[in-house]
Amino acid sequence: MAKNITPRSKDYSQWYQDIVKEASLAEHSPVRGSMVIKPTGYALWENMRDALDKMFKDTGHENAYFPLFIPKSFLSKEANHVEGFAKECAVVTHSRLVSTEDGVDVDPDSKLEEELIVRPTSETIIWDTYRGWIQSYRDLPILVNQWANVVRWEMRTRLFLRTMEFLWQEGHTAHATEGEAVAETKQMLEVYRTFAEEFMAMPVITGVKTESERFAGAVETYCIEALMQDGKALQAGTSHFLGQNFAKAFDCTFQDRDGKLKHVWATSWGVSTRLIGGLIMTHSDDDGLIIPPRIAPWQVVIVPIYRKDDEREAVVAYAEELKNELKLAGIRVKVDARDQYKPGWKFAQHEAEGVPVRLAVGPRDVENQKAECVRRDTREKQLLERSAVVTSVSALLEIMQQELLSAARERMQANTHEADSYDAFKTILDEKGGFIYAHWDGTAETEARIKEETKATIRCIPLSGDKTPGNCMVTGKPSAQKVLFARAY
Amino acid sequence: MAKNITPRSKDYSQWYQDIVKEASLAEHSPVRGSMVIKPTGYALWENMRDALDKMFKDTGHENAYFPLFIPKSFLSKEANHVEGFAKECAVVTHSRLVSTEDGVDVDPDSKLEEELIVRPTSETIIWDTYRGWIQSYRDLPILVNQWANVVRWEMRTRLFLRTMEFLWQEGHTAHATEGEAVAETKQMLEVYRTFAEEFMAMPVITGVKTESERFAGAVETYCIEALMQDGKALQAGTSHFLGQNFAKAFDCTFQDRDGKLKHVWATSWGVSTRLIGGLIMTHSDDDGLIIPPRIAPWQVVIVPIYRKDDEREAVVAYAEELKNELKLAGIRVKVDARDQYKPGWKFAQHEAEGVPVRLAVGPRDVENQKAECVRRDTREKQLLERSAVVTSVSALLEIMQQELLSAARERMQANTHEADSYDAFKTILDEKGGFIYAHWDGTAETEARIKEETKATIRCIPLSGDKTPGNCMVTGKPSAQKVLFARAY
Repeated sequence: MAKNITPRSKDYSQWYQDIVKEASLAEHSPVRGSMVIKPTGYALWENMRDALDKMFKDTGHENAYFPLFIPKSFLSKEANHVEGFAKECAVVTHSRLVSTEDGVDVDPDSKLEEELIVRPTSETIIWDTYRGWIQSYRDLPILVNQWANVVRWEMRTRLFLRTMEFLWQEGHTAHATEGEAVAETKQMLEVYRTFAEEFMAMPVITGVKTESERFAGAVETYCIEALMQDGKALQAGTSHFLGQNFAKAFDCTFQDRDGKLKHVWATSWGVSTRLIGGLIMTHSDDDGLIIPPRIAPWQVVIVPIYRKDDEREAVVAYAEELKNELKLAGIRVKVDARDQYKPGWKFAQHEAEGVPVRLAVGPRDVENQKAECVRRDTREKQLLERSAVVTSVSALLEIMQQELLSAARERMQANTHEADSYDAFKTILDEKGGFIYAHWDGTAETEARIKEETKATIRCIPLSGDKTPGNCMVTGKPSAQKVLFARAY
Repeated sequence: MAKNITPRSKDYSQWYQDIVKEASLAEHSPVRGSMVIKPTGYALWENMRDALDKMFKDTGHENAYFPLFIPKSFLSKEANHVEGFAKECAVVTHSRLVSTEDGVDVDPDSKLEEELIVRPTSETIIWDTYRGWIQSYRDLPILVNQWANVVRWEMRTRLFLRTMEFLWQEGHTAHATEGEAVAETKQMLEVYRTFAEEFMAMPVITGVKTESERFAGAVETYCIEALMQDGKALQAGTSHFLGQNFAKAFDCTFQDRDGKLKHVWATSWGVSTRLIGGLIMTHSDDDGLIIPPRIAPWQVVIVPIYRKDDEREAVVAYAEELKNELKLAGIRVKVDARDQYKPGWKFAQHEAEGVPVRLAVGPRDVENQKAECVRRDTREKQLLERSAVVTSVSALLEIMQQELLSAARERMQANTHEADSYDAFKTILDEKGGFIYAHWDGTAETEARIKEETKATIRCIPLSGDKTPGNCMVTGKPSAQKVLFARAY
């Protein structure tokens, strides 16, 4: 067990913080609620971003960039939208500082005529822009995505999971028909599911949010929900069908093939640096981070081991040769030849940082043309023939990627329950946690009561699985299908 | 000549705006001074970013991400720094809106204890963070870069050239010795020069800024200066040696090998979306944008030409085949088979957007296995054998890249002058514009007088070229070498 990491069994929340720190992913900044994403954390985010970006482009989307600042009046144009975001807005009111005896102060003469909101999300500024881009059905669809920072004034923050400023992507598409917009919403949900499972090795349940959990301004919110190791759920991505709400709020119409003027149909969809929190809590253990190879900043680290100065040169040269061979095969690999640290210390650090595969090579390995290979997740050790290093490591990375997903899937299944009564529901929640399928009568009242009494929320109405009708576990009223409950982050 | 583009000879400034519009690069947003970067403009920025990012990583840098908001008190810690940025700061003062009868208003109860500044640049927040990262010489150097948005409250804005919010990268490095920091500053200047010339085909002069043009907080500012077609200069990138100014302001020290506690040495360096303005004004003509192939969003567009419905299928299929062959060779290529537009209209659009190579194919080309190839810059036309399309187009793209640089270099040389008297200087400025080398006595007074009287500024003290001493053209006092003057953007 790593010295600086609190075991999960002792204090799960502290374990999470320790992992973020020991893996050098991020740290708190002096501005309350903001974080600094450190180079290792950012390299992880770059790999996630690049994989998602490719999937967006492969489905016909282009990137663009819209302004950080939104005029205050824009927010209020869509009634639900402003209600959802008004209480957590960073507001810019002035444009200048003046020197004072103690330093600087805000120049009162620089007060803005209209205050600007630092974007919490960009629907309003984007739909105001789309009005100018769309005249005819020929201008549709617009399939645009933006990688950006957004700000939501959160009081209780946790690194990655909930921060005042975070990085994300937000797709905003415009369509001529409702059907196309709904299809786009579902397509992007599927992109998120695929990304979560195939890159992050994080299994998810796809579904629809209830009205009370819907995005402010959406007609329907689709989501992917993941289950963390402590039995709590994490909303990992959302895809919204916005209907014509924003088009109407921003007077965005088009002339259709039939010559009639119609309002445009919209979607928006996003995932954020929050995914990194989900990644940590899906795979990691008491020794540190575990990252699936496809998104790991470094996939392999080679540690040369030498006792005397006269051994160093040959061992490091051998390590460099292996590195070059692996690099040629497209593997992200580095040699850790720092003299000031002992091998054991390096091993612990690479484990904390979650490097999937560690190769250790000493003088005997040089002589025998071998390398010791250890995989991060299972600690399985094997002695590889030098000639087989590239093929073995390549295969191992692929196997790890698959097995991390299988293992996470098994954990999720083991922690997924069904409850046929409210009592059973509460017992499972308190004793086991996890996902619970249960019947619900479809009303906001019952949903609120359950949340109030148990702190569990409806994560989603699942798209697949058991669709048998039944009776609500609380009120006994008819229920169309079981829905997915959990306590959540 | 393109219909919607004002010729340069008639109105250069309008020509610039027309190019930005007709090439679909960007547009003004409802927030004064902010811009929307449209998909084509953003794709161009992505290519520039990716090329730069690779160069940064190849020189040992990592990316990270620091907070958007900077506490007001941080800015005043470095005296020159706050003086430079105080007058153009977006200030966040509140964190909540409340509903009113007319919409929403700022909630007075949400006033912040300390106002937050939207970063105009990140030295202060980063050096506050580095203090926690650096204890010993073993922690140095830190070689970090950030891709981010920054805000400087500008009153007179022009798309790309000067906007309130812009995208940029800012490198921030920390070193144990002055020598290392100076070497880093010069290395990054060289990276910028290489990028400008080899990717943007934009020749630049490298030099050092005078004290009055120095970055607020720097000991020395190095820069690359480019010359636009209208004879005005553009500062295209800067690399600052910050000495120990920020380390002292933020109390950032390290224990050196000799056991002594010392302040850390710093650099910072940045280029921004402003480069796109420079790109436009280096190459483009009265028909639209011209982009060097290496950074062009699309390098080749194939336009199928057909008169009747029964020709369409074969011609489009042929175009698609060519596309696939070019794509396999790593070329960014698309087919424009939109039925609603005539070929001539498409040609004009692709010219406006600056696609380097256009291939046109009609039924006769299908039959004879040919393709008509036109390069954007010279309009040179050739009929290619189908079997030679990939090799010819690949070679042509490389030739264009080189010839755009040569042509820009010739223009710069033709517009670079020397002035041995102040009268000659003023005459050249008014009659020809361009870069002017002249002697200057090294004082801020003379520099200010020249600026006041002629609107020309010292762009830099060039690093290479003629180093012969002489006498100041204005005061006759001794001058160490000729310096580079120009009117500038």
